[in-house]
Amino acid sequence: MQIIKYPQQNEWNQILARPVIEMDEMDEVVNQIFKEVKTDGDAALRKYTWFYDRIKIDELAVSQKEINDSENFISNELKQAIQVAAQNIEKFHKTQQPESEVIETTEGVSCWRKFTPIDKVGLYIPGGSAPLFSTVLMLGIPARIAGCKEVVLCTPPNKDGKINPVILYACKLVGITKVFRIGGIQAIGAMALGTESVPNVYKIFGPGNQFVTAAKQTASKLGVAIDMPAGPSEVLVMADESSVPEFVASDLLSQAEHGADSQVILVSWKEELLEAVQIELNKQLKNLSREVIATKALNNSKMILVQSAEEALEISNLYGPEHLILSVKNEDDLLNGIQNAGSVFIGNYTPESAGDYASGTNHTLPTNGYAKSYSGVGLGSFMKSITFQKITQKGLQNLGPSIEIMAEAEQLEAHKNAVTVRLNQICQELA
Amino acid sequence: MQIIKYPQQNEWNQILARPVIEMDEMDEVVNQIFKEVKTDGDAALRKYTWFYDRIKIDELAVSQKEINDSENFISNELKQAIQVAAQNIEKFHKTQQPESEVIETTEGVSCWRKFTPIDKVGLYIPGGSAPLFSTVLMLGIPARIAGCKEVVLCTPPNKDGKINPVILYACKLVGITKVFRIGGIQAIGAMALGTESVPNVYKIFGPGNQFVTAAKQTASKLGVAIDMPAGPSEVLVMADESSVPEFVASDLLSQAEHGADSQVILVSWKEELLEAVQIELNKQLKNLSREVIATKALNNSKMILVQSAEEALEISNLYGPEHLILSVKNEDDLLNGIQNAGSVFIGNYTPESAGDYASGTNHTLPTNGYAKSYSGVGLGSFMKSITFQKITQKGLQNLGPSIEIMAEAEQLEAHKNAVTVRLNQICQELA
Repeated sequence: MQIIKYPQQNEWNQILARPVIEMDEMDEVVNQIFKEVKTDGDAALRKYTWFYDRIKIDELAVSQKEINDSENFISNELKQAIQVAAQNIEKFHKTQQPESEVIETTEGVSCWRKFTPIDKVGLYIPGGSAPLFSTVLMLGIPARIAGCKEVVLCTPPNKDGKINPVILYACKLVGITKVFRIGGIQAIGAMALGTESVPNVYKIFGPGNQFVTAAKQTASKLGVAIDMPAGPSEVLVMADESSVPEFVASDLLSQAEHGADSQVILVSWKEELLEAVQIELNKQLKNLSREVIATKALNNSKMILVQSAEEALEISNLYGPEHLILSVKNEDDLLNGIQNAGSVFIGNYTPESAGDYASGTNHTLPTNGYAKSYSGVGLGSFMKSITFQKITQKGLQNLGPSIEIMAEAEQLEAHKNAVTVRLNQICQELA
Repeated sequence: MQIIKYPQQNEWNQILARPVIEMDEMDEVVNQIFKEVKTDGDAALRKYTWFYDRIKIDELAVSQKEINDSENFISNELKQAIQVAAQNIEKFHKTQQPESEVIETTEGVSCWRKFTPIDKVGLYIPGGSAPLFSTVLMLGIPARIAGCKEVVLCTPPNKDGKINPVILYACKLVGITKVFRIGGIQAIGAMALGTESVPNVYKIFGPGNQFVTAAKQTASKLGVAIDMPAGPSEVLVMADESSVPEFVASDLLSQAEHGADSQVILVSWKEELLEAVQIELNKQLKNLSREVIATKALNNSKMILVQSAEEALEISNLYGPEHLILSVKNEDDLLNGIQNAGSVFIGNYTPESAGDYASGTNHTLPTNGYAKSYSGVGLGSFMKSITFQKITQKGLQNLGPSIEIMAEAEQLEAHKNAVTVRLNQICQELA
């Protein structure tokens, strides 16, 4: 990792700059595939599964039997671990049920909100070297708590055309029955547009590579909501003399192993700590099977030595990290100042991997600085709010004249008239 | 309005189909303007203000004096009306402060959420024939309650290069000081990218024509969040024999006057009502200054006669109207069944214009069916949530083994190791 000592404030933006992802070239591919999915439906899904995944798929839908049988291929140990995680995720997300009361803003004018589930949602689970079953839990559990009526899940098949049984087991556990062996752009296109087999949905969730990200953006232009824009995963660790270099190094590496483009930043006001972490990194790196990936990620990563905890906090808020690990003596001093971050891990015994898997918080978080404007996924991501209002005759007498004046000033005469005809009738009734 | 009697369920989708808006052609224009805003900054803003608005602008920023002086050009009556509206909007949005408690998901594992304001937000207020000062209240008040540090407002200048004083008065009232006389694509580009005069922001709010909408979509691709995708305004009125045809007609017209592309739908299970409303429409239409616009909108609009209240509700949920007016005898029977809508207006004395201006609910609402997946703007739109977690030694002993097993199954060895190094140390300490 590159060590930067006491940078000036005017250098911070440049030091914290993330790599720019060029998406323009992908638009053409995405548009073409979406067009074919729209016109050819399932046939287009099969065509592109052959083209990209080199698999001929007959049945796009995974059968209920396959889902049910999945548990036979998984160790009891893993099943139990998944259940522990699922329970915690359920417990934390259940408390996120938004509430609303009826507010009388003016006498006779009552306003309130109601939260309803998004009827149809789509979850995308990437393929690749490992089965990301944890994301099934992170998206499927809040969808179920929210009460989404239709939950569709797409994930690419392996070279035998199968879905990893752990993913299917997670689906079964959270109650997802509509699982399709489709990946990439064509999966997002299918959920956005609908085909003979795949129902269209109103919102699409889930991580993915740059193709999936581009496809989600296109879906979003078509009016299908998406969870958030995606970018490479990242962590910022703030540490002082109270932190354990071995632990800090293990956290940095668990971010670095995600991919060569992972962003890893360590900020400290203790120079010795940076050196100690560097030594630990080299030690632990050698034992990792993903050593090559992690090394590449670390080469792009930075250790920043700052003057004080306050400066570290400013840098962190400027960066807006997806994950923020706070391994410092006086954590309470810093906690209140955190403005921009996806998820925060506090203390020596709270590794990021706890939140990635099992503590209960969601691991679908804003990266690439989007923490400045986006929340991570939560129960609310699967719901929307509707406002309601009811006005009595008395209420309209109180409020009506103000509405008439404002509507007139905006030159919206019919808006004014909708009040006037009512006020006139109330007058007549009273006369 | 076209009257459709007792349509079959399989015809509903076609009857409710909204006009498709073709955006592709605008992308090129938007990309070009954004490119120039990025390279030339203020100069590009001046160039396109000349090109589109035919005005030469020296000072892009509206001076504090101009903002302060605005109140001298407005009647006391209008000022008071705006103040009434502002108080109600403030009252309703203040109650939307999201709350969170600390949850111990497993012994020693505490998780919670914190809601923080989006630091920098941009508000767009369209120009056109009338000054839409009400939108300044609807966006500026929740931004202030949320605690957004920097609120930037762009609105196109009139032919004298001025901003309508009512808009400036509303800015003053809600505390917005950074006001720029810039409209259209160049305004969205300025807030997304930043120039010498205009600060860049993290999220852009506000209505606009198809150019503004396309520009917001492009901003969104660049990582700047937006409130929601936009479309033509719309209302669905559900009415029975308890409703007053004069009132219903006035509500339909107040939607129709927005623009020729406004969507207006009346659904009823009382045939006589449809006829009575039609008569009232013709009567009221003649007196409107926007008669031509409203007539065009009504020509594209539909009255649907259905078998029952339940069928009406199904149709409404399928359509997902921006505004839903419920003018029926047994409203409570229907209220619980409303799943997809932006804002609901209940009873004979609750015209849509109440919510458009002054009752307290927000008028920035999802159109074009987006109510199926998006909420209208509220306090939460100006905030984001951060999750936090803190795990004790005991907590990690409880949860750690599950994390290790799951991380191993996802082949993320460093994730597992971040737990293992900690559990090992706890063991040593205990030994």
